[in-house]
Amino acid sequence: MRLKDLGERALLARLSPMGYPEEAPLPPGDDAGGVWVGGEAWLLKTDGFLYREVALHGMGPFEVGFRGVAATASDLIAKMGRPLGFALGLFLPPDLEASFVLDLVEGAAEAARRLGAPLLGGDTNAGREVALTVSGFARTASPLPRRAFPGDLLYLAGDRWGRTGAAIRAHYQERDLGAYPKIREAAFYPLPRRELLSLEGLPRGSLDSSDGLAETLWQLAELGVRVDLEALPLYPDVLAFAGSEEAALDLVLYGGEEFEAVLVVPPGAEAQVLARAEAGGLPLFRAGRVGEGRGVFLRGEPLPRKGYDHFRP
Amino acid sequence: MRLKDLGERALLARLSPMGYPEEAPLPPGDDAGGVWVGGEAWLLKTDGFLYREVALHGMGPFEVGFRGVAATASDLIAKMGRPLGFALGLFLPPDLEASFVLDLVEGAAEAARRLGAPLLGGDTNAGREVALTVSGFARTASPLPRRAFPGDLLYLAGDRWGRTGAAIRAHYQERDLGAYPKIREAAFYPLPRRELLSLEGLPRGSLDSSDGLAETLWQLAELGVRVDLEALPLYPDVLAFAGSEEAALDLVLYGGEEFEAVLVVPPGAEAQVLARAEAGGLPLFRAGRVGEGRGVFLRGEPLPRKGYDHFRP
Repeated sequence: MRLKDLGERALLARLSPMGYPEEAPLPPGDDAGGVWVGGEAWLLKTDGFLYREVALHGMGPFEVGFRGVAATASDLIAKMGRPLGFALGLFLPPDLEASFVLDLVEGAAEAARRLGAPLLGGDTNAGREVALTVSGFARTASPLPRRAFPGDLLYLAGDRWGRTGAAIRAHYQERDLGAYPKIREAAFYPLPRRELLSLEGLPRGSLDSSDGLAETLWQLAELGVRVDLEALPLYPDVLAFAGSEEAALDLVLYGGEEFEAVLVVPPGAEAQVLARAEAGGLPLFRAGRVGEGRGVFLRGEPLPRKGYDHFRP
Repeated sequence: MRLKDLGERALLARLSPMGYPEEAPLPPGDDAGGVWVGGEAWLLKTDGFLYREVALHGMGPFEVGFRGVAATASDLIAKMGRPLGFALGLFLPPDLEASFVLDLVEGAAEAARRLGAPLLGGDTNAGREVALTVSGFARTASPLPRRAFPGDLLYLAGDRWGRTGAAIRAHYQERDLGAYPKIREAAFYPLPRRELLSLEGLPRGSLDSSDGLAETLWQLAELGVRVDLEALPLYPDVLAFAGSEEAALDLVLYGGEEFEAVLVVPPGAEAQVLARAEAGGLPLFRAGRVGEGRGVFLRGEPLPRKGYDHFRP
């Protein structure tokens, strides 16, 4: 069976347990993998992408390099991992300008710097098109899996919800983002939030959201729970950009490239989570709750799943 | 300036210091990068390649997956890093058979298993051709850089010298390797040698050799020393395959894909290195010495440099 027939989710479900350790800090298929070393979890993550698939109008190699480190760091931080360093794997056409590559790596270094971690080298290869993988490692005493129990609360961390989706929409509609600086910033420099680490030990679970909120919630529901969305963050600029509440909600739910975390919080920990988030300057939005059952619902209505599949674009 | 004009070595010389930490266990541009954590060095390495560039006749996805983990592990082990885990970044055409990908990852898992480390997941993407990156992390109390002082001795670890070069030659000449099982094994399953780790604390320096011995020694000489080769390992099967001593030496010097280590040993540590290697079953071959000056010489004659450049194939 071909990949385009099998689909990416089914492929990953078969690949992720292969060679994965039994006693691991995170289960196979989670946002990052890891091993226990001396009572601490050491996490490893690699994330790859094609330049042409992520470079929106106005983004250059600097922004794409920045985005690469951000994507990998977001997975690590969502697991409560403190990033220690990143490495780049580059596939580059020989006709490419060297300055392009220098800008790309400078962008990656800038994102790493802002996350308090270094770049630790990498590898270059010739390829027919520009492709990157960014690997990173991190450590944490309290690795936070994808996990939810009925009764838990759902919180959305950060403020890029809908904004990155708007930027992607603007790209395809060839609309200018000059009037929407926060939308542009969210898409061009999506820095993951180290402030999440101040919550260590409190949430029940966490998921990196980079394929859109709806897809992330569907992945949460696949753990064997029902996800009830009660409210969604609707920022004025996203609303203005979208033109209607319905269109704005679509960007929040199906945007992608957020590099934000969905947090699952036990009710008993809610007050402490909110206090620490406020102290650390981390935006948190209470979006709903977890129940018994299956599926994802928005104010009682089933929420369609439209996850992106690399092999069926 | 385009990459094919600048060249890979010059590009890497500019990229490797970018974002690299000042107080690192290994200098920028070494076989792996790393950070100090609690008195121990934690190393990170990523290595990428195109399937079509490494798959010799008779190799399938299993062997290429195996080779991928081996390549990254070889860099880590050459730095005395004990591998903790590996992650895969895969670019795959949507028309590819899923069984191909499963075999590839099974090969990677098998190499990891033999090295005592798990696979820790990865990432899949569509791409025009099959490309892989393998990332790995490792730890060591005694990170071993590329380093040499005049008077040091040169040792070659392992027994793939010339054999992997012979397999590559066989591929292009469409010669069968049935009569040369050790040559086939060296190229198809180039397992790095964990036995190297038993030498921890003894060698002065170490380099992973994967672009051919001559290129590796030239990289050593670039540190500001003269490298004098006095002898080279010539295995009977390599000699028989090559047909002449001259042709066999060419395979030893310019083969590539060895995933073996070149060790720099202070004379005072030689006896202990040899004793530990023998106890651990690690083949070691004394190949020469390090002196003052520049360049690489084979029995007094300058050794040409013909390093492979991905951007000028």
